[in-house]
Amino acid sequence: MSQKILRLREAELYRAAASLFNKYGYSSTSMRQICRAIGIRESSLYHYIRSKEDLLYHICDRSMRLSLKAVEPILCSNSRPDLNLKRMIETHITTIAENANEHSTMLKELRSLSPSNQRKIIKLRDRYEALFRKVIENCVKKRVFRDVNVKITTLALLGMMNWLIHWYAPDGPMKSEEIARVFSDLFLKRPRR
Amino acid sequence: MSQKILRLREAELYRAAASLFNKYGYSSTSMRQICRAIGIRESSLYHYIRSKEDLLYHICDRSMRLSLKAVEPILCSNSRPDLNLKRMIETHITTIAENANEHSTMLKELRSLSPSNQRKIIKLRDRYEALFRKVIENCVKKRVFRDVNVKITTLALLGMMNWLIHWYAPDGPMKSEEIARVFSDLFLKRPRR
Repeated sequence: MSQKILRLREAELYRAAASLFNKYGYSSTSMRQICRAIGIRESSLYHYIRSKEDLLYHICDRSMRLSLKAVEPILCSNSRPDLNLKRMIETHITTIAENANEHSTMLKELRSLSPSNQRKIIKLRDRYEALFRKVIENCVKKRVFRDVNVKITTLALLGMMNWLIHWYAPDGPMKSEEIARVFSDLFLKRPRR
Repeated sequence: MSQKILRLREAELYRAAASLFNKYGYSSTSMRQICRAIGIRESSLYHYIRSKEDLLYHICDRSMRLSLKAVEPILCSNSRPDLNLKRMIETHITTIAENANEHSTMLKELRSLSPSNQRKIIKLRDRYEALFRKVIENCVKKRVFRDVNVKITTLALLGMMNWLIHWYAPDGPMKSEEIARVFSDLFLKRPRR
């Protein structure tokens, strides 16, 4: 099989597995169900992955790398920190909305990974959290924000955004870009008049 | 066994089971592990519950009813809506921090319940969400808040608060009451100067 076809099928495999893991949970999903979902034999599956846990690990890793790749360059741009934060919030929302099953699996099934794989994903997650901590710190330093507790504020913001996995429906009445704007407004402007 | 002792053991059982479900996941936790954790025989367990799913259902039900009981009376008080919201945020945070394993199990394992039990828990959750929607609506009506999207604002707030289950450590450096105040400040005052 050509490398390109292999990669395409791999992406399809991750998408199908993430959708099943998200619906039924990792332990309750069998390799057979995953194969049935993408129409391949169980023996062919091992072209792509070594084990079910390997599959889970790749989904988590991919989900974190997608978010990092989208958000990291914004922090490095030279704009005002509040404008960077606004763009980071909106990019985070649209990225996780586009990969809702993968992101949700990463967030819910971390405990199903082996300790060494858990550590690798947590390292990526910490790197991601640090981007938001940094931009909020910059907002405080430049006196755009009052002297808030940066750690708790970062966790509150990430929570507000990541909770989306529990209620966002791709076919719902609001597009992810609209939700993203409501969220950045909520966080950057106060709801109070 | 007297009713009081039965109830005490029942509470202990829910606590132990929620702690194991939260650590290993519902499907990966056996009844034997739960019995070992509280030092009873598997045969005695069925004094308290009918099945593992029954146990999960009771944990979810109890967690929602605790939150409802704590927060519902605040909405009914006659204070200013923003003061009510402040108290509701702080009460929600301290209630889930005190019952972190139960609340986390309820949020993560809903999909492991039978459809009819899922519906019952979702009904309680909707009732709870409606309390926050109502108080935010009141804030908009009384023109304390600008004309925000009430639905998304409610989901953003609940997300920000519920995410606590992923990072709160009872033995961490901040008490839940302090975290609660940072959160209500963040939501009610803007971080911006």
